[in-house]
Amino acid sequence: MIVVMEKDATPDQVEHMVQRVQEMGLKAHVIQGTERTVIAAVGDERVTKAEALESGPGVAKVLPILAPYKVASRELKPDPTQVRVGPFAAGAGVVGVIAGPCSVESEEQIMASAHAVKQAGATALRGGAFKPRTSPYSFQGLKEDGLKLLAQAREATGLAVVTEVMSPEEVDLVARYADVLQIGARNMQNYRLLEAAGKSDKAVLLKRGPAATLDEFLLAAEYILNEGNAHVMLCERGIRTFESHTRFTLPLATIAYLHKKTHLPVIIDPSHGTGHAYMVPDMAVAAVAAGADGLMIEVHPDPETAASDGYQSLNFAQFAETMERCRRVADAVDRVICSMEEAAV
Amino acid sequence: MIVVMEKDATPDQVEHMVQRVQEMGLKAHVIQGTERTVIAAVGDERVTKAEALESGPGVAKVLPILAPYKVASRELKPDPTQVRVGPFAAGAGVVGVIAGPCSVESEEQIMASAHAVKQAGATALRGGAFKPRTSPYSFQGLKEDGLKLLAQAREATGLAVVTEVMSPEEVDLVARYADVLQIGARNMQNYRLLEAAGKSDKAVLLKRGPAATLDEFLLAAEYILNEGNAHVMLCERGIRTFESHTRFTLPLATIAYLHKKTHLPVIIDPSHGTGHAYMVPDMAVAAVAAGADGLMIEVHPDPETAASDGYQSLNFAQFAETMERCRRVADAVDRVICSMEEAAV
Amino acid sequence: MIVVMEKDATPDQVEHMVQRVQEMGLKAHVIQGTERTVIAAVGDERVTKAEALESGPGVAKVLPILAPYKVASRELKPDPTQVRVGPFAAGAGVVGVIAGPCSVESEEQIMASAHAVKQAGATALRGGAFKPRTSPYSFQGLKEDGLKLLAQAREATGLAVVTEVMSPEEVDLVARYADVLQIGARNMQNYRLLEAAGKSDKAVLLKRGPAATLDEFLLAAEYILNEGNAHVMLCERGIRTFESHTRFTLPLATIAYLHKKTHLPVIIDPSHGTGHAYMVPDMAVAAVAAGADGLMIEVHPDPETAASDGYQSLNFAQFAETMERCRRVADAVDRVICSMEEAAV
Amino acid sequence: MIVVMEKDATPDQVEHMVQRVQEMGLKAHVIQGTERTVIAAVGDERVTKAEALESGPGVAKVLPILAPYKVASRELKPDPTQVRVGPFAAGAGVVGVIAGPCSVESEEQIMASAHAVKQAGATALRGGAFKPRTSPYSFQGLKEDGLKLLAQAREATGLAVVTEVMSPEEVDLVARYADVLQIGARNMQNYRLLEAAGKSDKAVLLKRGPAATLDEFLLAAEYILNEGNAHVMLCERGIRTFESHTRFTLPLATIAYLHKKTHLPVIIDPSHGTGHAYMVPDMAVAAVAAGADGLMIEVHPDPETAASDGYQSLNFAQFAETMERCRRVADAVDRVICSMEEAAV
Repeated sequence: MIVVMEKDATPDQVEHMVQRVQEMGLKAHVIQGTERTVIAAVGDERVTKAEALESGPGVAKVLPILAPYKVASRELKPDPTQVRVGPFAAGAGVVGVIAGPCSVESEEQIMASAHAVKQAGATALRGGAFKPRTSPYSFQGLKEDGLKLLAQAREATGLAVVTEVMSPEEVDLVARYADVLQIGARNMQNYRLLEAAGKSDKAVLLKRGPAATLDEFLLAAEYILNEGNAHVMLCERGIRTFESHTRFTLPLATIAYLHKKTHLPVIIDPSHGTGHAYMVPDMAVAAVAAGADGLMIEVHPDPETAASDGYQSLNFAQFAETMERCRRVADAVDRVICSMEEAAV
Repeated sequence: MIVVMEKDATPDQVEHMVQRVQEMGLKAHVIQGTERTVIAAVGDERVTKAEALESGPGVAKVLPILAPYKVASRELKPDPTQVRVGPFAAGAGVVGVIAGPCSVESEEQIMASAHAVKQAGATALRGGAFKPRTSPYSFQGLKEDGLKLLAQAREATGLAVVTEVMSPEEVDLVARYADVLQIGARNMQNYRLLEAAGKSDKAVLLKRGPAATLDEFLLAAEYILNEGNAHVMLCERGIRTFESHTRFTLPLATIAYLHKKTHLPVIIDPSHGTGHAYMVPDMAVAAVAAGADGLMIEVHPDPETAASDGYQSLNFAQFAETMERCRRVADAVDRVICSMEEAAV
Repeated sequence: MIVVMEKDATPDQVEHMVQRVQEMGLKAHVIQGTERTVIAAVGDERVTKAEALESGPGVAKVLPILAPYKVASRELKPDPTQVRVGPFAAGAGVVGVIAGPCSVESEEQIMASAHAVKQAGATALRGGAFKPRTSPYSFQGLKEDGLKLLAQAREATGLAVVTEVMSPEEVDLVARYADVLQIGARNMQNYRLLEAAGKSDKAVLLKRGPAATLDEFLLAAEYILNEGNAHVMLCERGIRTFESHTRFTLPLATIAYLHKKTHLPVIIDPSHGTGHAYMVPDMAVAAVAAGADGLMIEVHPDPETAASDGYQSLNFAQFAETMERCRRVADAVDRVICSMEEAAV
Repeated sequence: MIVVMEKDATPDQVEHMVQRVQEMGLKAHVIQGTERTVIAAVGDERVTKAEALESGPGVAKVLPILAPYKVASRELKPDPTQVRVGPFAAGAGVVGVIAGPCSVESEEQIMASAHAVKQAGATALRGGAFKPRTSPYSFQGLKEDGLKLLAQAREATGLAVVTEVMSPEEVDLVARYADVLQIGARNMQNYRLLEAAGKSDKAVLLKRGPAATLDEFLLAAEYILNEGNAHVMLCERGIRTFESHTRFTLPLATIAYLHKKTHLPVIIDPSHGTGHAYMVPDMAVAAVAAGADGLMIEVHPDPETAASDGYQSLNFAQFAETMERCRRVADAVDRVICSMEEAAV
């Protein structure tokens, strides 16, 4: 890292900081500028306490050079990771589509959804059984009954099942029914949960927190990877900004950045990323064009009566049309949307 | 709530929405405007599925009228709540000060800190034993050993102990040693943790998530209150914005807003709220002037060698001077900083 | 609009507000809720002083119902506007591409750029002669000499010329050489400049300010339209958020929103919208997929030596490849990138 | 600055970048890290084209070391600047208060306001004659008639007059009547206007743009200083964030940061900074406590009927009470609110 000294830092202060840098096991190079002195600290700066240098005497600021994550880094593993779960695959040129209702509401609703999204071309089914809701007065999900319905839908369709887990002690239960553990945006920095998911043998879909930087996002993934679970997908679902015509702001440049920095696949969620059903199809095709490794889309038999998130859910016809458009765009950018047929081969 | 129809909505669509509103148990008033029709839905709009109205046919937008929280609301309980824990009190004109290191590092460090912050005028000691850290490679806290040291410091000084709990299954353990359970910003919407804290008989300090709206913040408090725990303090610790000269942006107008909307005490954390020790004293006095019910300040015997957050920690002398300034300002705005002496009476 | 009264508002206060609403020429409907009274004010709420209702006695908040802009509104003019300038067209299914260097630097540079972007398929040339620069010490542009070089490039290639105007008194000068007056993001609310551009007979490319809401953006367009100039293009170039891996955050959902609300064409600038050349091609194709009516891309013969914005400029080969990808994606979404050939017909 | 190379940068690329740095007149120090090479470029990095280094081959990122502004810098002029205009002073321990209506509406209104704010303790009168309004349909100000009324109010009260100028060609006109030229937030980067104000002999109050970084803010001030006008005050009036319970987010930590970086006085505008009259008094006293050199507050005889910004204006009684509280807090932090009496001495 680079320790930038104040303009009026004394030689003693510079010397003090050089010693502090060396105590951390780093090599210190002092560069006398025309206006300031800077100390380049060479070595693995991902050590504890490095941040504390900023409170050293005469220090103006400390600039990190290295990315703080390791296992998630593309420098460590240059080849892209493809996550495969049953018929679903994402990464390395293959675009996987996860679709289904926000919440599992009933057998009829989830079975109809499963068949519809499969027919339209999805290879994974989403559906919340444990629902994190902003208000304690909102529908909280069918819990284990919902998980059973998801497993039943998998049985009937062959789709992979993606569902959220909210707490470390629920990981085992959810893992019994699900193929992919989803960690929601609100829990992106719930470290106990990340650790528990990291110990599971299920793939993990980690959603970005709406105020998380991409470094923080990758460090959250690192918590999972670090426990030995390599099947991690990163899901961009929008960040919080001053915009109010969308519920969140969906920054597709995240894809290019993450592809440069990490080997993990990047999934885009245009439903939460916009919060309005009418925007979802355009943002879904845009995500495919921009290089996304997957899509996660909310689909409901009758959005108007959905128990949650109806305003951002597509109905079956809208989803089928969106998939058709996505396939054409994927073709135009030389990428493939994974399908049940190919998976079956 | 108000359902605003599109300009070209048909009479059938309006009629359909009126029925939907009535099915929710609300009364519908149709108002024919010069350019649009709006439907005023009267009744308790905190019912499930209300949000789904937005996907109704011909609907332009839905505007909520009522606040989504109840128990936290000042309309329900007009008198301010004062949280009292041992010598510490916050709310109803009394300003409580919580101070101490980011992490408990050693007996020497925490005992020295406890004595110093007590002498300077704090009545509660903070210190992290379970530390949520952005990177898995950072210091994660002394865990139960840290809790024991905190209890030892309380024994020696009489200060109330505030410390973070990160997971529902750790609530019992932490509650055995702490007086106030802190729920960190990253866990503001960790609903299982909120529920577990709500079942505890300890007071709770709930920190605002850096991307949470104040309605979301109050709904998170509502999860705790809803379980029967009325001893909740709200802590503003800064939001994420485009500003980069501070780690977070600390919006003191939060105090006036929360005082208008809720009876719960509002604590300000100028350490996390700025991320720079040199800014902490000014923002601490500003918070007192703006009407804060409490302060939470990071103090360390030697910030430069702190295991975490050294860059935003005050040393003992800086903290003592800050407290002196806070007392003068509190006096100027006719409020009182709670002290060990008064508590002893 | 809807005037929401406080829970404890008195009948006198409600009556007072009803009179205030009527004094504004609006009709007042009083709706007695179970918890609050609201007053629906019916009529054209785009009158002066409406905002002041919020300071009325007993008023909790005021919710506007109608969009504040008129002429820009799709409700007024349902058909999309196509802006045509020489070989360039944008809107109504046609995607226009504007490309060229950030600044005009020399005859050689601008002529080479013009030929290269024409050959790759652009129909308009961009290039700054008057440069708004954050620092007074940065290159400020060649001024009128730059304008002359742009005109010379048009002469040689037939491309339409787009260039920025920074001040009302420079409108005449710039209009003498340019086909499209660009109003930069920093000047989006420079109302004197908007008025002056509105009086010109040249088309206007209005860039969104990085902190402007879309309502503010449309109201800025309204200033131009209001003076009688109907040839306005809206350019999304990114908003300021907490993200730091991109210079700005480019929200492509803007396209869907603006297409719903306004008939004006929407241009996307992936160069400023990301601030990194490596992200530009992906975001350009994503914009086309998402329905953009045009693209504005920075292209430079040698980005490394550019006088400004080199880090976000494509070189000629990169731009040609990007155009090729954009054509394929446009085809996949049934839209057409306008070309010199078709324009010549 | 520090040029950080990619991990796999070749020796040729490093050599190329060293040459580029040297061509810019800087000295290059190459530091071979364990994972990457960085090049420290020593010298005055405020040269043109430095930013273009980022597009060099093998470059990962470029980190600036020096602040980009000079004349505004505290390093250049360590002593705080005090701006004095008639009875008004701000800076160097003196807090100046500017108050008055958003818009000048009538002789009666501005004269009553002037007398009231003077009596309450302000030494400068604000009032808009040229009003930048988001909507072209809103009240645009009385223009020169408004300026004349302001001059008349100064005549009667002795208060200094602060009023906005919107365009370079209006600077002379406004300067004929005003003591302080206000440059509004929307025009913070209207460089022609900054230059024109820099050539005037009037003091300038520069408001921060709601999406401007503090470096951009100081560079805007630098445009004015650079033309020879040293009487510049910086006004923080809130930034745009995701918060919606305030119109803008008012970050008081700006004061500490600016006091560290610049010698120019810092004025806080709690009216625009919150957008709600009920929050203004608390934020005004907080600003004084936090070290502000001045306040700018909207005051109106009857906020409910104000032509603009009524929702954030105090009435006379509220302002008088706020001033009383500010004086007590100023006293508690050993600072002085400048008054007509002292000015008269």
